[in-house]
Amino acid sequence: MSLPPAPITSLQNPHVKRLVRLRNRRERDREGVILIEGARELARAAAAGLVPQTLYTCPPLYSPEAHEVESGLPGPRQPLSRDAFEKVSGRENPDGLLAVVPAPAPRLPDPAGDALLVVLHGLEKPGNIGAILRTADAVGASGVLVLGRGADVYSPGVIRASQGSVFSVPVAALGEEEALAYLAGHQFTRVACTPDAPREYWDAPLTGRVALVLGAEHAGLPPEWRTSDLSVRIPMHGEADSLNVATAAALVLYETLRQRR
Amino acid sequence: MSLPPAPITSLQNPHVKRLVRLRNRRERDREGVILIEGARELARAAAAGLVPQTLYTCPPLYSPEAHEVESGLPGPRQPLSRDAFEKVSGRENPDGLLAVVPAPAPRLPDPAGDALLVVLHGLEKPGNIGAILRTADAVGASGVLVLGRGADVYSPGVIRASQGSVFSVPVAALGEEEALAYLAGHQFTRVACTPDAPREYWDAPLTGRVALVLGAEHAGLPPEWRTSDLSVRIPMHGEADSLNVATAAALVLYETLRQRR
Repeated sequence: MSLPPAPITSLQNPHVKRLVRLRNRRERDREGVILIEGARELARAAAAGLVPQTLYTCPPLYSPEAHEVESGLPGPRQPLSRDAFEKVSGRENPDGLLAVVPAPAPRLPDPAGDALLVVLHGLEKPGNIGAILRTADAVGASGVLVLGRGADVYSPGVIRASQGSVFSVPVAALGEEEALAYLAGHQFTRVACTPDAPREYWDAPLTGRVALVLGAEHAGLPPEWRTSDLSVRIPMHGEADSLNVATAAALVLYETLRQRR
Repeated sequence: MSLPPAPITSLQNPHVKRLVRLRNRRERDREGVILIEGARELARAAAAGLVPQTLYTCPPLYSPEAHEVESGLPGPRQPLSRDAFEKVSGRENPDGLLAVVPAPAPRLPDPAGDALLVVLHGLEKPGNIGAILRTADAVGASGVLVLGRGADVYSPGVIRASQGSVFSVPVAALGEEEALAYLAGHQFTRVACTPDAPREYWDAPLTGRVALVLGAEHAGLPPEWRTSDLSVRIPMHGEADSLNVATAAALVLYETLRQRR
Protein backbone atom coordinates (compact mmCIF):
# COMPACT_ATOMS: atom_id res chain seq x y z
CA MET A 1 0.00 0.00 0.00
CA SER A 2 1.44 3.35 -0.99
CA LEU A 3 1.21 6.44 1.15
CA PRO A 4 -0.94 9.26 -0.15
CA PRO A 5 1.07 11.95 -1.96
CA ALA A 6 2.13 15.01 0.04
CA PRO A 7 -0.14 18.04 -0.23
CA ILE A 8 0.74 20.52 -2.95
CA THR A 9 1.31 23.94 -1.44
CA SER A 10 2.95 25.91 -4.26
CA LEU A 11 0.60 27.96 -6.39
CA GLN A 12 3.17 27.51 -9.18
CA ASN A 13 2.81 23.72 -9.12
CA PRO A 14 1.81 22.30 -12.53
CA HIS A 15 -1.34 20.68 -11.05
CA VAL A 16 -2.50 24.03 -9.72
CA LYS A 17 -1.67 25.82 -12.97
CA ARG A 18 -3.53 23.19 -15.01
CA LEU A 19 -6.60 23.38 -12.77
CA VAL A 20 -6.71 27.16 -13.19
CA ARG A 21 -6.40 26.73 -16.98
CA LEU A 22 -9.23 24.19 -16.97
CA ARG A 23 -11.66 26.81 -15.65
CA ASN A 24 -11.62 27.88 -19.29
CA ARG A 25 -13.93 25.84 -21.47
CA ARG A 26 -11.58 25.77 -24.46
CA GLU A 27 -8.90 24.16 -22.33
CA ARG A 28 -11.32 21.53 -21.05
CA ASP A 29 -12.47 20.73 -24.59
CA ARG A 30 -8.88 20.54 -25.81
CA GLU A 31 -8.02 18.01 -23.08
CA GLY A 32 -11.39 16.22 -23.29
CA VAL A 33 -12.06 16.61 -19.58
CA ILE A 34 -14.57 18.26 -17.28
CA LEU A 35 -14.24 19.67 -13.75
CA ILE A 36 -16.54 18.33 -11.06
CA GLU A 37 -16.56 20.15 -7.75
CA GLY A 38 -18.45 19.36 -4.57
CA ALA A 39 -19.32 16.28 -2.55
CA ARG A 40 -22.85 15.87 -3.83
CA GLU A 41 -21.91 16.38 -7.46
CA LEU A 42 -18.99 13.94 -7.21
CA ALA A 43 -21.17 11.33 -5.53
CA ARG A 44 -23.71 11.56 -8.37
CA ALA A 45 -20.94 11.33 -10.96
CA ALA A 46 -19.51 8.25 -9.23
CA ALA A 47 -22.96 6.66 -9.12
CA ALA A 48 -23.10 7.18 -12.90
CA GLY A 49 -19.79 5.34 -13.28
CA LEU A 50 -17.51 8.30 -13.91
CA VAL A 51 -13.96 7.89 -12.58
CA PRO A 52 -11.74 10.95 -11.98
CA GLN A 53 -8.25 11.16 -13.49
CA THR A 54 -7.37 12.86 -10.23
CA LEU A 55 -9.45 13.72 -7.19
CA TYR A 56 -8.05 16.85 -5.52
CA THR A 57 -8.76 16.97 -1.82
CA CYS A 58 -8.37 19.52 0.97
CA PRO A 59 -9.47 17.91 4.25
CA PRO A 60 -9.30 21.19 6.25
CA LEU A 61 -12.05 22.52 3.97
CA TYR A 62 -14.29 19.43 4.10
CA SER A 63 -17.99 19.99 4.68
CA PRO A 64 -19.81 17.29 6.71
CA GLU A 65 -21.03 15.86 3.39
CA ALA A 66 -17.48 15.81 1.97
CA HIS A 67 -16.27 13.92 5.07
CA GLU A 68 -19.04 11.42 4.51
CA VAL A 69 -18.58 10.74 0.81
CA GLU A 70 -14.84 11.14 0.21
CA SER A 71 -13.78 7.58 1.03
CA GLY A 72 -16.40 6.14 -1.34
CA LEU A 73 -15.26 8.16 -4.36
CA PRO A 74 -13.14 6.48 -7.04
CA GLY A 75 -9.88 7.78 -8.53
CA PRO A 76 -6.38 8.63 -7.33
CA ARG A 77 -6.11 11.37 -4.68
CA GLN A 78 -3.94 14.44 -4.67
CA PRO A 79 -4.19 16.65 -1.57
CA LEU A 80 -3.85 20.42 -1.92
CA SER A 81 -3.10 22.99 0.74
CA ARG A 82 -5.92 25.30 1.66
CA ASP A 83 -4.42 28.18 -0.32
CA ALA A 84 -3.92 26.01 -3.36
CA PHE A 85 -7.44 24.59 -3.17
CA GLU A 86 -9.00 28.01 -2.79
CA LYS A 87 -7.05 29.16 -5.82
CA VAL A 88 -8.40 26.40 -8.08
CA SER A 89 -11.94 26.22 -6.71
CA GLY A 90 -14.81 27.84 -8.62
CA ARG A 91 -16.85 28.32 -5.46
CA GLU A 92 -17.09 30.91 -2.76
CA ASN A 93 -17.21 28.27 -0.03
CA PRO A 94 -15.40 25.22 -1.40
CA ASP A 95 -16.05 21.92 0.36
CA GLY A 96 -12.60 20.48 -0.33
CA LEU A 97 -13.36 18.12 -3.23
CA LEU A 98 -12.62 18.81 -6.90
CA ALA A 99 -11.92 16.34 -9.68
CA VAL A 100 -10.70 16.31 -13.25
CA VAL A 101 -12.80 13.71 -15.06
CA PRO A 102 -12.78 12.50 -18.68
CA ALA A 103 -15.72 14.14 -20.47
CA PRO A 104 -18.69 11.74 -20.57
CA ALA A 105 -19.88 10.63 -23.99
CA PRO A 106 -23.22 12.16 -25.02
CA ARG A 107 -26.06 9.86 -24.00
CA LEU A 108 -29.04 9.78 -26.32
CA PRO A 109 -32.20 9.03 -24.37
CA ASP A 110 -33.77 5.60 -24.64
CA PRO A 111 -36.96 6.25 -26.62
CA ALA A 112 -38.75 3.12 -25.35
CA GLY A 113 -42.31 3.13 -24.07
CA ASP A 114 -43.89 6.40 -22.96
CA ALA A 115 -40.58 8.21 -22.98
CA LEU A 116 -40.63 11.79 -21.73
CA LEU A 117 -37.97 14.13 -23.11
CA VAL A 118 -37.05 17.74 -22.60
CA VAL A 119 -35.63 19.73 -25.52
CA LEU A 120 -33.91 23.02 -24.69
CA HIS A 121 -33.57 25.58 -27.48
CA GLY A 122 -31.21 28.52 -27.06
CA LEU A 123 -31.02 28.33 -23.27
CA GLU A 124 -27.77 29.78 -22.01
CA LYS A 125 -28.00 30.45 -18.29
CA PRO A 126 -26.34 27.54 -16.47
CA GLY A 127 -28.70 28.10 -13.54
CA ASN A 128 -31.75 27.47 -15.73
CA ILE A 129 -30.29 24.46 -17.54
CA GLY A 130 -29.18 22.98 -14.22
CA ALA A 131 -32.55 23.53 -12.56
CA ILE A 132 -34.31 21.85 -15.50
CA LEU A 133 -31.95 18.85 -15.26
CA ARG A 134 -32.79 18.58 -11.57
CA THR A 135 -36.52 18.56 -12.33
CA ALA A 136 -36.07 16.12 -15.24
CA ASP A 137 -34.38 13.79 -12.76
CA ALA A 138 -37.19 14.27 -10.22
CA VAL A 139 -39.91 13.33 -12.73
CA GLY A 140 -37.90 10.40 -14.07
CA ALA A 141 -37.61 11.86 -17.57
CA SER A 142 -35.83 9.73 -20.17
CA GLY A 143 -33.44 12.49 -21.10
CA VAL A 144 -32.67 16.06 -22.04
CA LEU A 145 -31.59 17.26 -25.49
CA VAL A 146 -29.71 20.54 -25.48
CA LEU A 147 -29.84 22.10 -28.94
CA GLY A 148 -26.60 23.53 -30.24
CA ARG A 149 -23.71 21.17 -30.85
CA GLY A 150 -21.46 23.49 -28.90
CA ALA A 151 -23.66 23.71 -25.82
CA ASP A 152 -21.59 23.34 -22.67
CA VAL A 153 -23.78 20.89 -20.75
CA TYR A 154 -20.95 19.93 -18.39
CA SER A 155 -19.89 23.46 -17.46
CA PRO A 156 -19.18 23.95 -13.75
CA GLY A 157 -22.27 26.20 -13.52
CA VAL A 158 -24.62 23.57 -14.99
CA ILE A 159 -23.12 20.78 -12.86
CA ARG A 160 -23.59 22.84 -9.76
CA ALA A 161 -27.10 24.12 -10.48
CA SER A 162 -28.17 20.57 -11.35
CA GLN A 163 -26.65 19.34 -8.05
CA GLY A 164 -25.12 16.56 -10.11
CA SER A 165 -28.38 15.50 -11.83
CA VAL A 166 -26.57 16.14 -15.12
CA PHE A 167 -24.85 12.79 -14.46
CA SER A 168 -28.06 10.89 -13.63
CA VAL A 169 -30.24 11.97 -16.55
CA PRO A 170 -29.14 11.12 -20.11
CA VAL A 171 -28.05 14.40 -21.71
CA ALA A 172 -26.91 15.11 -25.25
CA ALA A 173 -26.04 18.31 -27.11
CA LEU A 174 -27.39 17.96 -30.65
CA GLY A 175 -27.74 20.08 -33.77
CA GLU A 176 -31.29 21.19 -34.59
CA GLU A 177 -31.57 18.98 -37.67
CA GLU A 178 -30.33 15.96 -35.80
CA ALA A 179 -32.75 16.57 -32.96
CA LEU A 180 -35.71 16.95 -35.33
CA ALA A 181 -34.72 13.71 -37.08
CA TYR A 182 -34.33 11.88 -33.77
CA LEU A 183 -37.74 13.02 -32.52
CA ALA A 184 -39.48 12.24 -35.81
CA GLY A 185 -37.72 8.90 -36.15
CA HIS A 186 -38.95 7.80 -32.75
CA GLN A 187 -42.48 9.14 -33.13
CA PHE A 188 -42.28 11.70 -30.34
CA THR A 189 -45.15 14.16 -30.02
CA ARG A 190 -43.44 17.53 -29.80
CA VAL A 191 -45.07 19.83 -27.26
CA ALA A 192 -43.90 23.44 -27.53
CA CYS A 193 -44.34 25.66 -24.50
CA THR A 194 -44.96 29.23 -25.71
CA PRO A 195 -46.88 32.17 -24.24
CA ASP A 196 -49.08 32.56 -27.35
CA ALA A 197 -50.29 28.96 -27.54
CA PRO A 198 -54.09 28.60 -27.67
CA ARG A 199 -54.26 25.78 -25.14
CA GLU A 200 -53.45 25.80 -21.43
CA TYR A 201 -51.01 23.04 -20.52
CA TRP A 202 -53.38 21.20 -18.22
CA ASP A 203 -55.90 20.85 -21.07
CA ALA A 204 -53.42 19.22 -23.46
CA PRO A 205 -53.01 15.46 -23.75
CA LEU A 206 -49.51 14.80 -22.45
CA THR A 207 -49.52 11.02 -22.31
CA GLY A 208 -47.63 8.83 -24.77
CA ARG A 209 -44.17 9.62 -26.09
CA VAL A 210 -43.71 13.32 -25.46
CA ALA A 211 -40.88 15.78 -26.07
CA LEU A 212 -41.41 19.06 -24.25
CA VAL A 213 -39.71 21.90 -26.17
CA LEU A 214 -38.68 25.08 -24.35
CA GLY A 215 -37.03 28.26 -25.64
CA ALA A 216 -35.09 31.03 -23.95
CA GLU A 217 -37.10 33.41 -21.77
CA HIS A 218 -37.01 36.45 -24.00
CA ALA A 219 -36.23 35.07 -27.44
CA GLY A 220 -38.73 32.20 -27.25
CA LEU A 221 -38.84 29.48 -29.89
CA PRO A 222 -38.21 29.93 -33.63
CA PRO A 223 -41.19 29.16 -35.91
CA GLU A 224 -40.06 25.66 -36.88
CA TRP A 225 -40.14 24.61 -33.23
CA ARG A 226 -43.13 26.68 -32.21
CA THR A 227 -45.38 24.93 -34.71
CA SER A 228 -44.81 21.64 -33.02
CA ASP A 229 -47.39 18.88 -32.94
CA LEU A 230 -48.96 20.57 -29.95
CA SER A 231 -48.36 23.89 -28.28
CA VAL A 232 -49.28 24.84 -24.76
CA ARG A 233 -49.11 27.92 -22.60
CA ILE A 234 -49.01 28.51 -18.89
CA PRO A 235 -51.70 30.94 -17.75
CA MET A 236 -50.48 34.12 -16.03
CA HIS A 237 -52.64 36.20 -13.79
CA GLY A 238 -50.18 38.74 -12.49
CA GLU A 239 -47.97 41.39 -13.99
CA ALA A 240 -44.97 39.11 -14.38
CA ASP A 241 -43.95 39.11 -18.04
CA SER A 242 -43.10 35.47 -18.01
CA LEU A 243 -42.32 32.76 -15.58
CA ASN A 244 -38.75 31.63 -15.26
CA VAL A 245 -38.14 28.99 -17.95
CA ALA A 246 -37.12 26.39 -15.34
CA THR A 247 -40.40 27.00 -13.51
CA ALA A 248 -42.33 26.61 -16.76
CA ALA A 249 -40.50 23.34 -17.46
CA ALA A 250 -41.36 22.00 -14.00
CA LEU A 251 -45.05 22.84 -14.38
CA VAL A 252 -45.44 21.04 -17.70
CA LEU A 253 -43.25 18.08 -16.68
CA TYR A 254 -45.27 17.52 -13.51
CA GLU A 255 -48.50 17.86 -15.48
CA THR A 256 -47.35 14.98 -17.71
CA LEU A 257 -46.72 12.99 -14.53
CA ARG A 258 -50.17 13.80 -13.19
CA GLN A 259 -51.78 12.71 -16.42
CA ARG A 260 -49.76 9.48 -16.53
CA ARG A 261 -50.63 8.30 -13.02
CA MET B 1 -37.90 74.73 -15.58
CA SER B 2 -34.58 73.92 -13.98
CA LEU B 3 -31.71 72.23 -15.77
CA PRO B 4 -30.81 68.74 -14.61
CA PRO B 5 -27.91 68.69 -12.15
CA ALA B 6 -24.41 68.08 -13.53
CA PRO B 7 -23.16 64.47 -13.40
CA ILE B 8 -21.25 63.48 -10.31
CA THR B 9 -17.82 62.22 -11.27
CA SER B 10 -15.93 62.13 -7.95
CA LEU B 11 -15.93 58.80 -6.14
CA GLN B 12 -15.54 60.85 -2.95
CA ASN B 13 -18.81 62.69 -3.51
CA PRO B 14 -21.24 62.28 -0.57
CA HIS B 15 -23.92 60.77 -2.85
CA VAL B 16 -21.50 58.07 -4.02
CA LYS B 17 -20.31 57.38 -0.49
CA ARG B 18 -23.87 57.10 0.80
CA LEU B 19 -24.87 54.73 -2.00
CA VAL B 20 -21.91 52.48 -1.20
CA ARG B 21 -22.90 52.54 2.50
CA LEU B 22 -26.48 51.64 1.60
CA ARG B 23 -25.35 48.34 0.10
CA ASN B 24 -25.22 47.35 3.77
CA ARG B 25 -28.57 46.36 5.16
CA ARG B 26 -28.02 47.98 8.54
CA GLU B 27 -27.45 51.32 6.87
CA ARG B 28 -30.63 50.97 4.83
CA ASP B 29 -32.65 50.07 7.92
CA ARG B 30 -31.15 52.99 9.84
CA GLU B 31 -32.20 55.42 7.09
CA GLY B 32 -35.51 53.65 6.40
CA VAL B 33 -34.77 53.28 2.69
CA ILE B 34 -34.25 50.57 0.09
CA LEU B 35 -32.18 50.46 -3.09
CA ILE B 36 -33.94 49.63 -6.35
CA GLU B 37 -31.75 48.99 -9.36
CA GLY B 38 -32.72 48.24 -12.92
CA ALA B 39 -35.30 49.48 -15.42
CA ARG B 40 -37.79 46.66 -14.98
CA GLU B 41 -37.63 46.73 -11.20
CA LEU B 42 -38.03 50.53 -11.09
CA ALA B 43 -40.98 50.39 -13.48
CA ARG B 44 -42.73 47.86 -11.23
CA ALA B 45 -41.99 49.96 -8.16
CA ALA B 46 -43.39 53.06 -9.88
CA ALA B 47 -46.51 51.12 -10.90
CA ALA B 48 -46.95 50.29 -7.20
CA GLY B 49 -46.79 54.00 -6.33
CA LEU B 50 -43.26 54.14 -4.90
CA VAL B 51 -41.44 57.43 -5.49
CA PRO B 52 -37.63 57.61 -5.25
CA GLN B 53 -35.93 60.17 -3.02
CA THR B 54 -33.37 60.30 -5.81
CA LEU B 55 -33.13 58.46 -9.12
CA TYR B 56 -29.47 58.06 -10.08
CA THR B 57 -28.96 57.84 -13.82
CA CYS B 58 -26.08 57.07 -16.14
CA PRO B 59 -27.29 57.42 -19.75
CA PRO B 60 -24.09 55.96 -21.29
CA LEU B 61 -24.93 52.68 -19.51
CA TYR B 62 -28.64 52.59 -20.46
CA SER B 63 -30.02 49.32 -21.75
CA PRO B 64 -32.76 49.57 -24.40
CA GLU B 65 -35.30 49.00 -21.59
CA ALA B 66 -33.74 51.77 -19.48
CA HIS B 67 -34.00 54.17 -22.44
CA GLU B 68 -37.64 53.25 -22.77
CA VAL B 69 -38.75 53.57 -19.14
CA GLU B 70 -36.56 56.36 -17.74
CA SER B 71 -38.73 59.31 -18.71
CA GLY B 72 -41.80 57.72 -17.11
CA LEU B 73 -40.18 57.16 -13.71
CA PRO B 74 -41.00 59.53 -10.84
CA GLY B 75 -38.53 61.29 -8.55
CA PRO B 76 -35.71 63.84 -8.87
CA ARG B 77 -32.76 62.81 -11.09
CA GLN B 78 -29.08 62.88 -10.30
CA PRO B 79 -26.75 61.80 -13.12
CA LEU B 80 -23.55 59.92 -12.28
CA SER B 81 -20.48 59.39 -14.41
CA ARG B 82 -19.87 55.89 -15.67
CA ASP B 83 -17.14 55.29 -13.09
CA ALA B 84 -19.31 56.55 -10.27
CA PHE B 85 -22.30 54.48 -11.37
CA GLU B 86 -20.24 51.33 -11.68
CA LYS B 87 -18.90 51.93 -8.21
CA VAL B 88 -22.35 52.13 -6.61
CA SER B 89 -24.09 49.47 -8.72
CA GLY B 90 -24.69 46.01 -7.29
CA ARG B 91 -24.72 44.42 -10.73
CA GLU B 92 -22.16 43.09 -13.11
CA ASN B 93 -23.80 44.80 -16.09
CA PRO B 94 -25.63 47.81 -14.71
CA ASP B 95 -28.31 49.35 -16.93
CA GLY B 96 -27.80 52.89 -15.68
CA LEU B 97 -30.76 53.25 -13.30
CA LEU B 98 -30.58 53.05 -9.50
CA ALA B 99 -32.84 54.70 -6.93
CA VAL B 100 -32.96 55.30 -3.22
CA VAL B 101 -36.58 54.84 -2.18
CA PRO B 102 -38.33 55.12 1.21
CA ALA B 103 -38.91 51.57 2.49
CA PRO B 104 -42.48 50.47 1.69
CA ALA B 105 -44.77 49.72 4.63
CA PRO B 106 -45.51 46.00 5.11
CA ARG B 107 -48.68 45.07 3.24
CA LEU B 108 -50.81 42.42 4.87
CA PRO B 109 -52.71 40.46 2.22
CA ASP B 110 -56.41 41.05 1.77
CA PRO B 111 -57.97 37.85 3.09
CA ALA B 112 -61.23 38.28 1.15
CA GLY B 113 -62.84 35.47 -0.84
CA ASP B 114 -60.76 32.49 -1.89
CA ALA B 115 -57.53 34.20 -0.97
CA LEU B 116 -54.35 32.29 -1.81
CA LEU B 117 -51.32 33.01 0.37
CA VAL B 118 -47.74 31.82 0.46
CA VAL B 119 -45.97 31.53 3.82
CA LEU B 120 -42.17 31.18 3.74
CA HIS B 121 -40.48 29.71 6.81
CA GLY B 122 -36.72 30.05 7.21
CA LEU B 123 -35.97 30.75 3.56
CA GLU B 124 -32.80 32.74 3.18
CA LYS B 125 -31.60 32.61 -0.41
CA PRO B 126 -32.72 35.81 -2.14
CA GLY B 127 -32.90 33.88 -5.42
CA ASN B 128 -35.49 31.49 -4.00
CA ILE B 129 -37.57 34.17 -2.28
CA GLY B 130 -37.50 36.29 -5.44
CA ALA B 131 -38.50 33.39 -7.70
CA ILE B 132 -41.43 32.56 -5.40
CA LEU B 133 -42.58 36.18 -5.48
CA ARG B 134 -42.48 36.07 -9.26
CA THR B 135 -44.63 32.94 -9.31
CA ALA B 136 -47.01 34.34 -6.68
CA ASP B 137 -47.51 37.32 -8.98
CA ALA B 138 -48.07 35.03 -11.98
CA VAL B 139 -50.80 33.04 -10.22
CA GLY B 140 -52.43 36.17 -8.81
CA ALA B 141 -51.81 35.21 -5.20
CA SER B 142 -53.16 37.56 -2.54
CA GLY B 143 -49.82 37.86 -0.83
CA VAL B 144 -46.68 36.40 0.65
CA LEU B 145 -45.85 36.23 4.36
CA VAL B 146 -42.16 35.93 5.12
CA LEU B 147 -41.66 34.57 8.62
CA GLY B 148 -39.04 36.28 10.74
CA ARG B 149 -39.58 39.91 11.68
CA GLY B 150 -36.08 40.69 10.51
CA ALA B 151 -36.41 39.10 7.07
CA ASP B 152 -34.96 41.36 4.42
CA VAL B 153 -37.73 41.13 1.82
CA TYR B 154 -36.51 44.27 0.01
CA SER B 155 -32.86 43.28 -0.27
CA PRO B 156 -31.29 44.00 -3.67
CA GLY B 157 -31.05 40.24 -4.29
CA VAL B 158 -34.76 39.61 -3.66
CA ILE B 159 -35.81 42.65 -5.71
CA ARG B 160 -33.70 41.46 -8.59
CA ALA B 161 -34.68 37.78 -8.50
CA SER B 162 -38.34 38.79 -8.28
CA GLN B 163 -37.85 41.10 -11.29
CA GLY B 164 -39.75 43.68 -9.29
CA SER B 165 -42.72 41.42 -8.43
CA VAL B 166 -41.92 42.17 -4.77
CA PHE B 167 -43.62 45.52 -5.43
CA SER B 168 -46.72 44.06 -7.12
CA VAL B 169 -47.61 41.32 -4.63
CA PRO B 170 -48.47 42.28 -1.03
CA VAL B 171 -45.53 41.17 1.13
CA ALA B 172 -45.07 41.29 4.89
CA ALA B 173 -42.39 40.00 7.22
CA LEU B 174 -44.13 38.70 10.34
CA GLY B 175 -43.21 36.87 13.54
CA GLU B 176 -44.36 33.24 13.71
CA GLU B 177 -46.97 33.91 16.40
CA GLU B 178 -48.40 36.82 14.51
CA ALA B 179 -48.58 34.82 11.31
CA LEU B 180 -50.34 31.90 13.02
CA ALA B 181 -52.84 34.33 14.55
CA TYR B 182 -53.46 36.05 11.22
CA LEU B 183 -54.05 32.75 9.43
CA ALA B 184 -56.32 31.38 12.16
CA GLY B 185 -58.20 34.68 12.50
CA HIS B 186 -59.05 34.66 8.80
CA GLN B 187 -59.90 30.95 8.57
CA PHE B 188 -57.10 30.01 6.22
CA THR B 189 -56.54 26.32 5.56
CA ARG B 190 -52.81 25.85 6.09
CA VAL B 191 -51.27 23.52 3.54
CA ALA B 192 -47.73 22.44 4.46
CA CYS B 193 -45.51 21.18 1.66
CA THR B 194 -43.15 18.53 3.11
CA PRO B 195 -41.44 15.48 1.59
CA ASP B 196 -42.94 13.11 4.22
CA ALA B 197 -46.59 14.11 3.74
CA PRO B 198 -48.94 11.16 3.03
CA ARG B 199 -50.80 12.88 0.20
CA GLU B 200 -49.58 13.97 -3.23
CA TYR B 201 -50.34 17.61 -3.90
CA TRP B 202 -52.65 16.95 -6.85
CA ASP B 203 -54.87 14.77 -4.63
CA ALA B 204 -55.40 17.44 -1.98
CA PRO B 205 -58.33 19.83 -2.03
CA LEU B 206 -56.74 23.23 -2.63
CA THR B 207 -59.81 25.36 -3.19
CA GLY B 208 -61.14 27.85 -0.65
CA ARG B 209 -58.93 30.10 1.44
CA VAL B 210 -55.51 28.49 1.34
CA ALA B 211 -52.11 29.38 2.82
CA LEU B 212 -49.32 27.31 1.29
CA VAL B 213 -46.50 26.89 3.83
CA LEU B 214 -42.94 26.17 2.64
CA GLY B 215 -39.73 25.59 4.59
CA ALA B 216 -36.06 25.83 3.67
CA GLU B 217 -34.73 23.07 1.40
CA HIS B 218 -32.64 21.20 3.91
CA ALA B 219 -34.08 22.22 7.27
CA GLY B 220 -37.71 21.82 6.22
CA LEU B 221 -40.56 22.94 8.47
CA PRO B 222 -40.64 22.78 12.29
CA PRO B 223 -43.32 20.50 13.80
CA GLU B 224 -45.81 23.27 14.60
CA TRP B 225 -45.94 24.22 10.92
CA ARG B 226 -45.63 20.70 9.52
CA THR B 227 -48.78 19.57 11.28
CA SER B 228 -50.84 22.07 9.40
CA ASP B 229 -54.46 21.49 8.44
CA LEU B 230 -53.28 19.60 5.41
CA SER B 231 -49.89 18.45 4.28
CA VAL B 232 -48.86 17.54 0.78
CA ARG B 233 -45.78 16.21 -0.94
CA ILE B 234 -44.47 16.38 -4.46
CA PRO B 235 -43.68 12.93 -5.85
CA MET B 236 -40.05 12.34 -6.91
CA HIS B 237 -39.01 9.64 -9.29
CA GLY B 238 -35.36 10.41 -9.76
CA GLU B 239 -32.32 10.58 -7.55
CA ALA B 240 -32.69 14.28 -6.79
CA ASP B 241 -32.92 14.71 -3.02
CA SER B 242 -35.45 17.44 -3.27
CA LEU B 243 -36.74 19.89 -5.78
CA ASN B 244 -35.70 23.46 -5.48
CA VAL B 245 -38.11 25.15 -3.03
CA ALA B 246 -39.15 27.72 -5.63
CA THR B 247 -40.01 24.91 -8.04
CA ALA B 248 -42.03 23.16 -5.33
CA ALA B 249 -43.89 26.42 -4.63
CA ALA B 250 -44.73 26.85 -8.32
CA LEU B 251 -46.08 23.31 -8.63
CA VAL B 252 -48.47 23.63 -5.70
CA LEU B 253 -49.52 27.19 -6.56
CA TYR B 254 -50.38 26.21 -10.12
CA GLU B 255 -52.22 23.14 -8.86
CA THR B 256 -54.44 25.45 -6.77
CA LEU B 257 -55.09 27.44 -9.95
CA ARG B 258 -55.95 24.28 -11.88
CA GLN B 259 -58.40 23.21 -9.19
CA ARG B 260 -59.98 26.66 -9.05
CA ARG B 261 -60.71 26.99 -12.76
